[in-house]
Amino acid sequence: MTLVHPDTRPADGLATVLESLSSRFHNRLSTAAAIREQHGHTTTWHKNQPPDAVVFAQSAEEIAEVVRVCAANHVPVIPFGTGTSLEGQVNAPMGGVSIDVSQMNRVLEVHPEDLDCIVQPGVTRKQLNTELRATGLFFPIDPGADASIGGMVATRASGTNAVRYGTMKDNVLALTAVMADGSIIRTGRRAKKSSAGYDLTRLLVGSEGTLGIITDITLRLYGIPEAISGGVCPFDSLEGACNAVIATIQSGIPVARIELLDELQVRASNAYSKLSMRETPTLFLEFHGSQNGVAEQSELFGEIAAEFGGGPFEWTHNAEERTKLWQARHDAYFAVMQLRPGTQGLATDVCVPISRLAECIMETKADIDRLGLVAPIVGHVGDGNFHVSVMVDMDNPDELRDVDEFMELLVERAIAMEGTCTGEHGVGQGKMKYLDAELGGSVDVMKSIKRALDPLNILNPGKIVRV
Amino acid sequence: MTLVHPDTRPADGLATVLESLSSRFHNRLSTAAAIREQHGHTTTWHKNQPPDAVVFAQSAEEIAEVVRVCAANHVPVIPFGTGTSLEGQVNAPMGGVSIDVSQMNRVLEVHPEDLDCIVQPGVTRKQLNTELRATGLFFPIDPGADASIGGMVATRASGTNAVRYGTMKDNVLALTAVMADGSIIRTGRRAKKSSAGYDLTRLLVGSEGTLGIITDITLRLYGIPEAISGGVCPFDSLEGACNAVIATIQSGIPVARIELLDELQVRASNAYSKLSMRETPTLFLEFHGSQNGVAEQSELFGEIAAEFGGGPFEWTHNAEERTKLWQARHDAYFAVMQLRPGTQGLATDVCVPISRLAECIMETKADIDRLGLVAPIVGHVGDGNFHVSVMVDMDNPDELRDVDEFMELLVERAIAMEGTCTGEHGVGQGKMKYLDAELGGSVDVMKSIKRALDPLNILNPGKIVRV
Repeated sequence: MTLVHPDTRPADGLATVLESLSSRFHNRLSTAAAIREQHGHTTTWHKNQPPDAVVFAQSAEEIAEVVRVCAANHVPVIPFGTGTSLEGQVNAPMGGVSIDVSQMNRVLEVHPEDLDCIVQPGVTRKQLNTELRATGLFFPIDPGADASIGGMVATRASGTNAVRYGTMKDNVLALTAVMADGSIIRTGRRAKKSSAGYDLTRLLVGSEGTLGIITDITLRLYGIPEAISGGVCPFDSLEGACNAVIATIQSGIPVARIELLDELQVRASNAYSKLSMRETPTLFLEFHGSQNGVAEQSELFGEIAAEFGGGPFEWTHNAEERTKLWQARHDAYFAVMQLRPGTQGLATDVCVPISRLAECIMETKADIDRLGLVAPIVGHVGDGNFHVSVMVDMDNPDELRDVDEFMELLVERAIAMEGTCTGEHGVGQGKMKYLDAELGGSVDVMKSIKRALDPLNILNPGKIVRV
Repeated sequence: MTLVHPDTRPADGLATVLESLSSRFHNRLSTAAAIREQHGHTTTWHKNQPPDAVVFAQSAEEIAEVVRVCAANHVPVIPFGTGTSLEGQVNAPMGGVSIDVSQMNRVLEVHPEDLDCIVQPGVTRKQLNTELRATGLFFPIDPGADASIGGMVATRASGTNAVRYGTMKDNVLALTAVMADGSIIRTGRRAKKSSAGYDLTRLLVGSEGTLGIITDITLRLYGIPEAISGGVCPFDSLEGACNAVIATIQSGIPVARIELLDELQVRASNAYSKLSMRETPTLFLEFHGSQNGVAEQSELFGEIAAEFGGGPFEWTHNAEERTKLWQARHDAYFAVMQLRPGTQGLATDVCVPISRLAECIMETKADIDRLGLVAPIVGHVGDGNFHVSVMVDMDNPDELRDVDEFMELLVERAIAMEGTCTGEHGVGQGKMKYLDAELGGSVDVMKSIKRALDPLNILNPGKIVRV
């Protein structure tokens, strides 16, 4: 096997590709600077590396055509959903063609009786839930942004409901993907479980476009719970809030959401989302079940919170109040960006076993204070997963050095506590350097798989592993 | 890359391996016929193909040594747990060395506070639950036999609790494996979720020893429910029982177990397990939750059953009665083997979307009747997964032809209904021929992965895909 690096592509490879795609896609191919820059958008502090062109694809067959033309000319292809990934996943460090799937935004099939549906990759999570409303079903996975389902599959996204409903890995039954040679494969069918060969579904979930380009997805759905209660619980201390989370999870209360906002995040969210929460470490909670069940769970949680300096836990069945709360939670990152205008946000993400959560967060907080960073902590703490959003003055080299140090310490600590360098944001460009420390020889196996399935290294090169 | 088939191994390859392993492992290497045959044991009608030798390994490092010696001489290695797989997974069609992990049977770590544990692959599921008893936790996955956890990982096993707790794919957090070159990798850590690169955990779960040999496993655990209720519900008709299952799942009752036994299976289980159930299609059920919760669920189910000609639904909190019932369910296959002494059992397994379950089972039953087979139906019907155990007179060519026809029809029907040729038994040797029909081009991707990770094709060759 010969691995051809995109840099070794024929001198006129890109020109050939652009000519071919232009005559095939006409005004659905763009090389305009603004469009290209938008498709290298990274949401965070990662530098924008725009692709050479953008194709707005409308079908798996069209994507396969693009891939075949690019493969023949050793030109990279980078799939693009909504561009809300956080680790540089849509950047084009080696140039190439961005395949925008936003026009592939139809819900193809809904099977309420089987609790599943099939969607195109450009459908966004909010769009899906709007279209499902009449069925009494919902799809629970909810990263902060209104991301595309394709992007959520590609990054193995999760969100606030993962503590109860799992992540994308648990909620994709099967998918269709265009592989590096332009072939189109379907990794499974609609059976709820299967032992038929290697789990290619799970291999592609989280592969960030480096092994195949996802063109439709079969998702698990859930009945909207009979009753939902939710509320907010302030704590005297960050440690108390963390320990209440640990005790809640260990007690077996089937909490649907349990989210931490530190004091600074509460201040930012109050300002951005026009709320009036007490500015102290706070948990946002939600319980799903029967009317009696959610009341029982809410009361049990209130008792646990009180033991750790929390409360009062004010909860409600009122849908409007809950919606406002969770919108504020989803907007947490955008709220933070208002804290320090003119800076770039670094949105990072680690995950540790729940027993180490309080210790990990307290040590992280100590680093933030010592380095004098503006960096709220927020997280899906029921899974041991939390985020630090560091607001960085990109023109201050001292601060950049401090942020680098902070990141290293954060990841080293998570790994030392048997955790992971990313719970849900993925590797992209930003976390590549930590994979060896976390996974050792497994990274070589990943490289072998990448080389086997993409020998020319044209699928989103420069992400996850360097081959 | 050159793919060296084991048949092309150096003429003295096997002799070299046996000599080397003998001097290293002494009486933990056996070439005795009885031991070898036991390790080619297939439980079902698949022909016994014993390995050339068996090594009783005691550590990952020892397994790595065996793999390196075998790789150097192009000799296959076949991992062996308890030998209870059903599709010929432990057979040695190309000879080679069986690596028996039954002496690697320690529970290495239990972390009750994180709801996880780390076990060696030879730990059996019953042993694990016995060792966990004092912690108040349990591991729910329960194939019929008292299988090893390593084997359950390798075949992506599930069982009666999967409708509530998922399959092995959902309950392995990480694992350690020896790869084809003798390297030892760890696929993840103890964080409850991670987006750190390709999901090698899920790739190895269900790979049946063809990509790596599993040497320890980090499992998710669950708190033993506050209350458990269970019982038996007879139905007037098979169709009524199936439709009651569909309605129960669609209603969102969080049933923990819902198992179907057809009339013939009830008769077999009555005889084998000394029960006195009415000989009619019957559902076995179990509910997990709070005292109020399980009572509520049991009553709701009783109402649904009555609508479909089922009942009375007799349920109990009594642990002893429940245990007897579920032991009978787990012994279903052994009970069937007594139905027709002198025959071999064919234990097959398909899975369809739940909306197609009644139709699929009724058409299957019609085939059984038309062909005059002795073949009870039993299954994890809450997942749309069911088994047919055909008792085959291996000396009757007409009957063998009929059984072949039956199998083809069963699998074709499941696939036509958007289902899978195996919900939980795996591919092994028995289901290889159906993979193309089910998965098309995905099979080529599986072959690429197999060639990349095992270029010499020494890891359990002749299973899942032919390379």
